[in-house]
Parts: sequence; C-alpha cells; structure tokens
Amino acid sequence: MILTVTLNPALDVTYTVDAVSTNATHRVRHVESQPGGKGVNVARILHAAEEPVLATGLLGGVTGALVTALLDAAGVPVSFVRIQGETRRTVAVIDAGEATGFLEPGPAVTAAEWERFVEHYEALVRVARVVVLSGSLPIGVPPDAYAVLIRTANAHRVRTILDTGGEALRHGISARPDIARPYGEDIAGLLSAGATPAPEAGAGYDDIGPARQALRLGAHAVVVSQGPHCLLALTGDQAWRVVSPEHITGNVTGAGDACVAALARALQAGTPWPAPLADAVAMSAAAVAAPVAGVIDQDTYRRLRPYVAAMTA
Amino acid sequence: MILTVTLNPALDVTYTVDAVSTNATHRVRHVESQPGGKGVNVARILHAAEEPVLATGLLGGVTGALVTALLDAAGVPVSFVRIQGETRRTVAVIDAGEATGFLEPGPAVTAAEWERFVEHYEALVRVARVVVLSGSLPIGVPPDAYAVLIRTANAHRVRTILDTGGEALRHGISARPDIARPYGEDIAGLLSAGATPAPEAGAGYDDIGPARQALRLGAHAVVVSQGPHCLLALTGDQAWRVVSPEHITGNVTGAGDACVAALARALQAGTPWPAPLADAVAMSAAAVAAPVAGVIDQDTYRRLRPYVAAMTA
Repeated sequence: MILTVTLNPALDVTYTVDAVSTNATHRVRHVESQPGGKGVNVARILHAAEEPVLATGLLGGVTGALVTALLDAAGVPVSFVRIQGETRRTVAVIDAGEATGFLEPGPAVTAAEWERFVEHYEALVRVARVVVLSGSLPIGVPPDAYAVLIRTANAHRVRTILDTGGEALRHGISARPDIARPYGEDIAGLLSAGATPAPEAGAGYDDIGPARQALRLGAHAVVVSQGPHCLLALTGDQAWRVVSPEHITGNVTGAGDACVAALARALQAGTPWPAPLADAVAMSAAAVAAPVAGVIDQDTYRRLRPYVAAMTA
Repeated sequence: MILTVTLNPALDVTYTVDAVSTNATHRVRHVESQPGGKGVNVARILHAAEEPVLATGLLGGVTGALVTALLDAAGVPVSFVRIQGETRRTVAVIDAGEATGFLEPGPAVTAAEWERFVEHYEALVRVARVVVLSGSLPIGVPPDAYAVLIRTANAHRVRTILDTGGEALRHGISARPDIARPYGEDIAGLLSAGATPAPEAGAGYDDIGPARQALRLGAHAVVVSQGPHCLLALTGDQAWRVVSPEHITGNVTGAGDACVAALARALQAGTPWPAPLADAVAMSAAAVAAPVAGVIDQDTYRRLRPYVAAMTA
C-alpha cells in the first residue's frame, strides 16, 4: 500500500469568468471544487490507476469536511487527522487567458495536533510499503517534520519519496529518503542555502549540480522535473535524462504529482531504474492533457508510454 | 419582530494580498469570512442595534452550514430552509487599492424547495410586524417570488420593504410593498422595461422620474440611494432629499443594507416620515465607516444622527 501524506491539503476551487480585470467585480459563470494538495493529487492518480493507496494528513473545519466528502465520493481511501483550524482553499480564476490564482495560507497546527498526527502516522506506516510526503508544511508544524516522518518509515523499512521545497526539503533530505523531488523556482538556491555551496551552482539551466548536491545531502535518488515533459535524475552514480516525444499543451498544475505517482508505483512494485523515470514522464505529460490536477488522461498516457525512454545523461 | 428574507445568501470571503495582478498566483496574507447576502446584513445590523429580528431564506451545503454557524456565533436568530444546492461564496480580494470581486452564481433551487420555503415563510410572517425582502433571486425561484411573499405579508397586515433590482423588482412592486428601494446601475431602465416608459427617463442623474414610476407601479413609498451619503424618497405625494453633513470614506459595501435596516426599524416602531429617512442616511454613512458589510460604526452613527435631516425635494 502507498501512503500519501498531505500536511497542508486544500480545496481547489476553479472560477470561470469572461475576463479577469483588477478592481472590478466579476460574475462567476461556473464553479468547480476539487480535493487538492500535492499528496492528495498523488492519491487520486494512484487510485484511478488501481494502485492500493491511503491518503493521510491534516484536515479541519467545513472545508476539511468537504475535502473528505469529495475524496469519499471518488472512492479514495482516507485516514486524516482532524485539526481545529480551517483547511485552506485555493481559488483559480480562469478566463480565455491564463489562470489568476489565490492561495490561502492554511490553518495553524498546534503542537498537540502535530503529536497526534505523528502517532497516527506511526500506526499507518506499519501497513505501508511506500510513503509519499508532498507539499509545503502548514504553520505550526516543525521544519524538520518530513525528516521525522522519513526516519520512522526508514525504521520500518518502508520506502519514501519526498516532494517539497525550501527548508522542509533541506531538513527532509538529511533523513535519507529513497527519492527526493526538489521543487521551487531556484532549486540550486534551495539546496545550497545552509549547506556547502555546490560547485556547480550558478551554472544556469543545468540542474545536474543541485541534483548532485541533493544526493550528497542524503537522498538515495534525485528526480528534477524540467517542466512536465522532461526530467533529470540521479540514481546513485548514474545520471538520466528523459524527454517526452510529444509536447502536450494544457493544464500543467498537478503534472509533478503525476510524476511522483509513477515513481511511487514503481517503488511499490520494485521496478529497477530507469524504467520508473520513463513512466514518470509519460504520466506527467498525460496529466497536462487532463483539465484538472489529480487526474491523468489515460489515452495520452497509453499513447506516449511506449515511446518514452531514459537516456544516460 | 422584523423578518429578513434572503433567498440567495452568501459566505463573504475577503482575501488580503500585496497587489492583485492578472495571470499571476497570489499568496493570501489574511482570510476573513462573514455571513453575507443583503437580507443577512440587514439582520446583523438590526441585531447589533438590539432590534428583535429573525433571518430566514434558503441555505445549503457546507457553505450554508458555515453561514448558519457564523450567525449563531454572533447571536443572530435564524430560521432558514435547507436546500440541496451549495450556498454561494463571494470572494473580495483587497490590496492597497480597490477590491477585485468574484461572485459565485449560487445554487439552483427546486420547485419543491421553493414551495417548502413559501410554507415556512407563511408561518413566520404571522409573528412578524415587518418583512424585509432583499437581494437577487437564485436560479429556480420564480421571478414573481417577491410579489408572492409581499401579498402574503399584506394579507396579514405585515409591513414590507423590497430591496432588489431587475425583474424581481418589477414583479415585486406590483404587489404593493410599503417601501421599495430599487437598486441597479440603471434604475430608470429597470423600472421602465416592460412598463409604460416614464416621461422622465433619460433625464440623467435625476432619479425623481424612476422613483415616481416605482410609485405608480404600486410601491407606497420609494427610497433611492444616491451613494451612501444621499437619498431621494417619495412618500405618497411628498418628495424628500436627505444628505449626510459629512462624507465618510471607507467600505461602501453594505451601506444600502444599513439604510434598509433603519427603514425597517422605523416601520416596526411606526415612526412617521420623514424621520426614518434621516436615520437611514446616518446608518448608511456609519456603515461606510465599518470595515465589513453588515456592521455599522456606532460612534459615527451617534455623531452624525443629530445633524441629518430630510429636506423637501
């Protein structure tokens, strides 16, 4: 079973309007609500792919209840810890052009709630084979939260994927996850701050330097997405580059979560490198073809998959 | 007791961000949720003013439950009819400049739900002295809904205030409310469409023409707000103009609801014209001094009230 951890999930609301303009009032033509947060997206994709999955994390308030209700309706197994604070919403306003987004900060988590989650997680991790830890940390959760959760998984020989950025990433990597997927606008900066500067830092678009740094900091393997159609990976002493043969246009939100879902499925099955990387790019590109995050377009996936292969970088 | 009817209430959410720009993602610094909808605002203002009030209307889903919970927490007595659809939200995004707003369309109401509301309303109206009917009609509610509700109130000798626009206003006025407060960008157009064109239509900023038309169509009195600091009223054969001695700057949303709250309080007390009009302008200006709709700034109200008087127009 794959356990996905989402400490700061969301209700993702999409508003369709005619045209967005600032300082104006807009009548929303269509409202769509989806359960959201990176780990929740991974769980939805894995459930749709018929992989055994369980979504855990922290949920609170009526927005949290709505996230649970939507996941229940979709048949995704859940076991969240309830908190006092109100789960955040994200609002994406869509017109003919790109999206204008508003991300609520999310609730503050108390020390007692975090302890309660750690206990709950310890029980769940015993029945898992893979744990996926995704997204930002809510206020009140300690910055080394992912390190704590990864160490618990390591103690039970459960495989781990860490998909986050910033301080949560730097702390988490030190606990030696099986796969780290660093994200953020400046991956080099994220990884070099507070550590010995990587000699390759500042080398522009080349992510090999920061990836090597992530490996040195403790990750067993590092996967860096370069948009939804391309990734770079370091698996021990081997470096790989995978490129989709087709450039899909559409909704890039959630493409990274589809990539992580593919990697989790491969860890669960014990598939050796580099096949999981090719699958990850096919899943990621297929997510772009689906209109919302947390869903992949099956036809696109089936069409692309045979033509994606990892090359030595 | 004053009964406020809100058929399309809302949860009003305010996001504070650094600066709104289109096609960008914004981190929301602060989230504030308030029960909303024009009739709900009137009920909150009357409750704060220690007037006996009961808020009714239609609420559904988790958003509806949140509106009820917030009103309960504020101590506002409520008796809403539950519907299947999800109550709408409005999102106002505030930066250093003006607000950028998004209004969800709200739920569709079934014929059975509307019938259930009419029955519920008939029971409540027997114990009311004044009914306030505010705002737009949700999808599925017939356009003559307010006319139906006003006729029921008339049959029980309960006084009525109709505060709406468009087709709901045209239908509602024909049922002879005690006071109509037409709103909308083009009051003249609202009232003349489908009726004999008022000879004064097209006379620019002068609202006397449309107000006379509203009177001819059936309202016993007509109050037209000209911004939050000025109103024009026709009470039978008398015309009044009321202007605030001070121009308050702030939040104009909900100023019209404060005006209606003052009129409802006056109808309940049997205060003769034109004193209610002066009170309405003082309340409306005091609402501008409060940061959110549904609240008036008591200090501003007490300071202004003695200096506001109605003049013959």
